[in-house]
Amino acid sequence: MTAFTPQATDYAERVRTTFDRQPFMAALGARLGDVAPGAVDIHLDRRPDLCQQNGFLHAGVSTSIADSAAGFAAFSLFKPDTDVLTTEFKVNLLRPAAGDHFVARGRVLKPGRTLTVCRSDVFAVADENETHVLTALLSMMTMPGPAA
Amino acid sequence: MTAFTPQATDYAERVRTTFDRQPFMAALGARLGDVAPGAVDIHLDRRPDLCQQNGFLHAGVSTSIADSAAGFAAFSLFKPDTDVLTTEFKVNLLRPAAGDHFVARGRVLKPGRTLTVCRSDVFAVADENETHVLTALLSMMTMPGPAA
Amino acid sequence: MTAFTPQATDYAERVRTTFDRQPFMAALGARLGDVAPGAVDIHLDRRPDLCQQNGFLHAGVSTSIADSAAGFAAFSLFKPDTDVLTTEFKVNLLRPAAGDHFVARGRVLKPGRTLTVCRSDVFAVADENETHVLTALLSMMTMPGPAA
Amino acid sequence: MTAFTPQATDYAERVRTTFDRQPFMAALGARLGDVAPGAVDIHLDRRPDLCQQNGFLHAGVSTSIADSAAGFAAFSLFKPDTDVLTTEFKVNLLRPAAGDHFVARGRVLKPGRTLTVCRSDVFAVADENETHVLTALLSMMTMPGPAA
Repeated sequence: MTAFTPQATDYAERVRTTFDRQPFMAALGARLGDVAPGAVDIHLDRRPDLCQQNGFLHAGVSTSIADSAAGFAAFSLFKPDTDVLTTEFKVNLLRPAAGDHFVARGRVLKPGRTLTVCRSDVFAVADENETHVLTALLSMMTMPGPAA
Repeated sequence: MTAFTPQATDYAERVRTTFDRQPFMAALGARLGDVAPGAVDIHLDRRPDLCQQNGFLHAGVSTSIADSAAGFAAFSLFKPDTDVLTTEFKVNLLRPAAGDHFVARGRVLKPGRTLTVCRSDVFAVADENETHVLTALLSMMTMPGPAA
Repeated sequence: MTAFTPQATDYAERVRTTFDRQPFMAALGARLGDVAPGAVDIHLDRRPDLCQQNGFLHAGVSTSIADSAAGFAAFSLFKPDTDVLTTEFKVNLLRPAAGDHFVARGRVLKPGRTLTVCRSDVFAVADENETHVLTALLSMMTMPGPAA
Repeated sequence: MTAFTPQATDYAERVRTTFDRQPFMAALGARLGDVAPGAVDIHLDRRPDLCQQNGFLHAGVSTSIADSAAGFAAFSLFKPDTDVLTTEFKVNLLRPAAGDHFVARGRVLKPGRTLTVCRSDVFAVADENETHVLTALLSMMTMPGPAA
């Protein structure tokens, strides 16, 4: 894993401030976890209203936290006075998202001036065990204008 | 556009019944629209809690209705006593999802015994105008067991 | 289908000149077909050395002409003194690529200053019939510097 | 990395025999490298006829070896008397494919009875250094009938 050097000294605070301004993450009950340069985790607890007809987490929910974790991982490497926008992503659903606790791990694969390519993986967490339920590849774009 | 022949005579009722059992679609306030063989629309109104920090619909929300519209479009062509599971999808976000009303249009491109490939597009709707905000390609798998 | 207005009056010539400079298209025996603003076709005849172990066209070959058709479709809308680069794509293989003649149809879905999103479809052509074998979504980036 | 147990004792020989029957891999000059359960490498040397107008490896070429490496990685875990078919993939091109030697590393992420999800990465190799030029997610389907 390459170690990345952030361009903003207050990168972690910028991530946390911007996360707190995302109404949809709050609506899902998602919580920000570890924040490092190019690596951001998001945690989510299962709620019945986030599920499909069969009781598994809806793919839209696991995708939402995967997308946000990757977006913030990219954003952590951006210059001050920039914002982040997802331009595209691909998701493979590896297993039904069964479980009570989930973590999305967004990781930068390749930073870029315009486009930053990320991977994001969602795991169901139970005791000490993690089950891999989703893997994604995502492209994030640097936008002008302050996000925080 | 190929016309598809459904294998279940009550395909529309099966789609509506299964949609009504999806807690997450209800949580988003999503409503089922037109249901035809291989073609299902889902409508959504903007709510502040479904947005990002900049007031646009969160990509996870537009993706969720795109995924569900495609899943039900595939499901409408399945035999009775089957269920549907998304195995993977790819989303391109064409424009910021600005607007008050949105529609996701799921369409089957290629039905199959095991895998059904779909396209899904989300449009922001204002008066008579539609703005294309998201396009997706998705794979749906036929699963044994009754969904409805 | 939106009609696009090219920014270069000699867009078709630029596409043809650049196509002729692609050694790999020549190696595959691919030929440029119709060129319109935002829409480019590429034709290919089956050769045994382009196939898999089962006699179908290798997915890498059908993907190559799909990618090039989309790249030139995007390029046809670019300003003079620019080049095009594929940043990412997603391919769904709908059917085995059986047949003697194939056409890839690249179409711009959404032009942009930095990123242009395209669709590309490959069909096996026999007499009057076309069989849809591949569908793709692709992102093309505008690069500085003359391509032609 | 999970260790996988192959279902065919002669898995490596099956991979090598099937690879040798792919005319397109031979046409590209691609060579099979390490073969382990769920992990297959393919090597390729740059040739002018495999390039774009700018001298970089054509995206269709790097994608072809990425696809084949992943397909054989999946195939190495299949039962005897089965074949493998790519159903879909997504590629992110991280950097221009500059260099003289390339290696594609296909790895199984999640084996399955019907679908096996793989990752595949292509690196430009120079002396001791590797540069990551492509990352892909792919779905491989198990097909009845002997491949070898």
